[in-house]
Amino acid sequence: MRVAVIGVGLIGGSIGMAASQRLDAETVGFDPDALALALALERGAISHAAGSLEEAVEGADAVFVAAPVSALPALIAEALDAAGPEAVISDVGSTKREVAAVDDERFVGGHPLAGAETAGVGHARADLFDGAVWYLTPTERTSGIRYERLHRMLSAIGARPVAIDPQTHDTLLAIVSHLPHVLANVLAAQAASALGTLGQQLPAAGPSFRDATRVAGASSAIWTDIYMSNRDMLGHAIDETIDRLRVVRETLRAGDATAVTAWNDGAAEARHQLLEPQLGAGELRELRVSVPNRPGVVAHLALELGRAGVNIPDMALYPAPDMSEGVIAFWVAGEDAAAQAQTIIASLGFPVFRA
Amino acid sequence: MRVAVIGVGLIGGSIGMAASQRLDAETVGFDPDALALALALERGAISHAAGSLEEAVEGADAVFVAAPVSALPALIAEALDAAGPEAVISDVGSTKREVAAVDDERFVGGHPLAGAETAGVGHARADLFDGAVWYLTPTERTSGIRYERLHRMLSAIGARPVAIDPQTHDTLLAIVSHLPHVLANVLAAQAASALGTLGQQLPAAGPSFRDATRVAGASSAIWTDIYMSNRDMLGHAIDETIDRLRVVRETLRAGDATAVTAWNDGAAEARHQLLEPQLGAGELRELRVSVPNRPGVVAHLALELGRAGVNIPDMALYPAPDMSEGVIAFWVAGEDAAAQAQTIIASLGFPVFRA
Repeated sequence: MRVAVIGVGLIGGSIGMAASQRLDAETVGFDPDALALALALERGAISHAAGSLEEAVEGADAVFVAAPVSALPALIAEALDAAGPEAVISDVGSTKREVAAVDDERFVGGHPLAGAETAGVGHARADLFDGAVWYLTPTERTSGIRYERLHRMLSAIGARPVAIDPQTHDTLLAIVSHLPHVLANVLAAQAASALGTLGQQLPAAGPSFRDATRVAGASSAIWTDIYMSNRDMLGHAIDETIDRLRVVRETLRAGDATAVTAWNDGAAEARHQLLEPQLGAGELRELRVSVPNRPGVVAHLALELGRAGVNIPDMALYPAPDMSEGVIAFWVAGEDAAAQAQTIIASLGFPVFRA
Repeated sequence: MRVAVIGVGLIGGSIGMAASQRLDAETVGFDPDALALALALERGAISHAAGSLEEAVEGADAVFVAAPVSALPALIAEALDAAGPEAVISDVGSTKREVAAVDDERFVGGHPLAGAETAGVGHARADLFDGAVWYLTPTERTSGIRYERLHRMLSAIGARPVAIDPQTHDTLLAIVSHLPHVLANVLAAQAASALGTLGQQLPAAGPSFRDATRVAGASSAIWTDIYMSNRDMLGHAIDETIDRLRVVRETLRAGDATAVTAWNDGAAEARHQLLEPQLGAGELRELRVSVPNRPGVVAHLALELGRAGVNIPDMALYPAPDMSEGVIAFWVAGEDAAAQAQTIIASLGFPVFRA
């Protein structure tokens, strides 16, 4: 197998290392930064350094575009132009609606939740994605065969592929990633200003402040793009935060201790709910689904299972010889998840049985 | 030495253990919760369990009131009534303006930045305060001799006593502790609501969300009191956060990438500034200050040095035989801090020399 990596930073370099060590793949990299490319080669993040994107992509079975979000559309288009008809092309951008417009059956958007920082290939490692959710945003155009290949590759390098639609992805990330970064930035700036006015230093305090500002001022080289590419969703999230803060403000102004307690207990309940164990622990169970050979059916099934929180550690496609129909095998973890997946698939009208 | 602890939870119990193990003190505890009191005795957090506050306080050299903030004024008054004329009485409340109104030279407000959670005496330990800032809020009424005794006790149990005025303390804590708790609560509630709407589970995501919500829903038994007792300062802090979020919101709406970068870089700079190493590493240097024997002079000096960020690991008072004047020795860490302290003290009009 030949894997091409366009952009050999922390993420691209780690994909290369993992593909090389865990898939025994030949890995070809390209980066406009010649020093980064040389370091990637030296560290074994890639087995060959290409002189251009075209050269890297030529003959690749899978192509990962790992560049800042604003550079992705152009680079993905170049990669699709240069790639062969059987290749699967993906990206690792932190927002997904823009690349969802790519109209090519060979493309599947992706976003691994690992190593968001711009640490560079010097910090790349083969186990970066172990256990990490790797969102995939297949569309109706996406070829099921290519989706399956990508899903299996990602599982094999240790990640947990989860299908999600691009709009849901960007709304979700606005809340669980972009908004926390905004709040950390705001709190750090506000505290620095207040401490200056008070003539005080930050005490070596308890964990609340340190934790709350740990991601403040993350690299602008990455984060300006992320904020800008998701500015509508992030804006809505900020609006809601402002509304919620206003409610707290009014409760404090009113001096209503009972309401303060109810609000605080509500947050405890919310946190508990967020951290409840996810579906999907236990032995792998296999489900087999008969599907017609039409575009989008694999994406549709994967998205519905992802939406229900069913983890799919592995999957396989078995097309019929005449390609008129096929069978998809899904492996899910634990009896509860298997039963839930079976119910969901059946309700979508596909014949499904336990293998 | 005899130390009384009123309220034997995590903080009170740890004070008892530290005083017992590090000051070789006899420690007497009282708690309305008989089970907590028995456990404190069993764990060695106190050497005697008293049947009442009065019994615990009788004959004590130092009294620590470690109860929820709303219970402090009444308990401090009871402790002052029961304590002898030479005792020093302190508390460990997270807000300090209310107890600053206590009009008794034996009282010094206090607040250790350690173990804010209501973990109970089962988690008490003698090293809980090692290296932790322990704010002290002496007033003009506070006796210098008692302030010195308390300062030395706290240093001896491992803490870093820092004098601060109550208003500054409460403003500071609103920013570095209470506001981060509010933001964590708001983010947890908002995320739980959004994930419910999206039908998604929280991904085992990067650190930003976990860190940002770690303190969400902290025990209402403690935090309702803290929020309520500092609701004006916290309210101002929330207002400022809302204003800052509005600016971010408008910048995103305008789609101004340059402004987004400037804002994000500003947060990086703020974080850097907050985490700059504090003054006060290096060998201890001694400063001697001649002071008139009048109320408030020790508090005044300690507050000015605390305001400048000068750490005072140790101090001692040497009254003249006729008590008309005295010498205060301050030990500060490192040459820079010593020079700064000398300048500050001289500028306040006190003769100061290096010992």
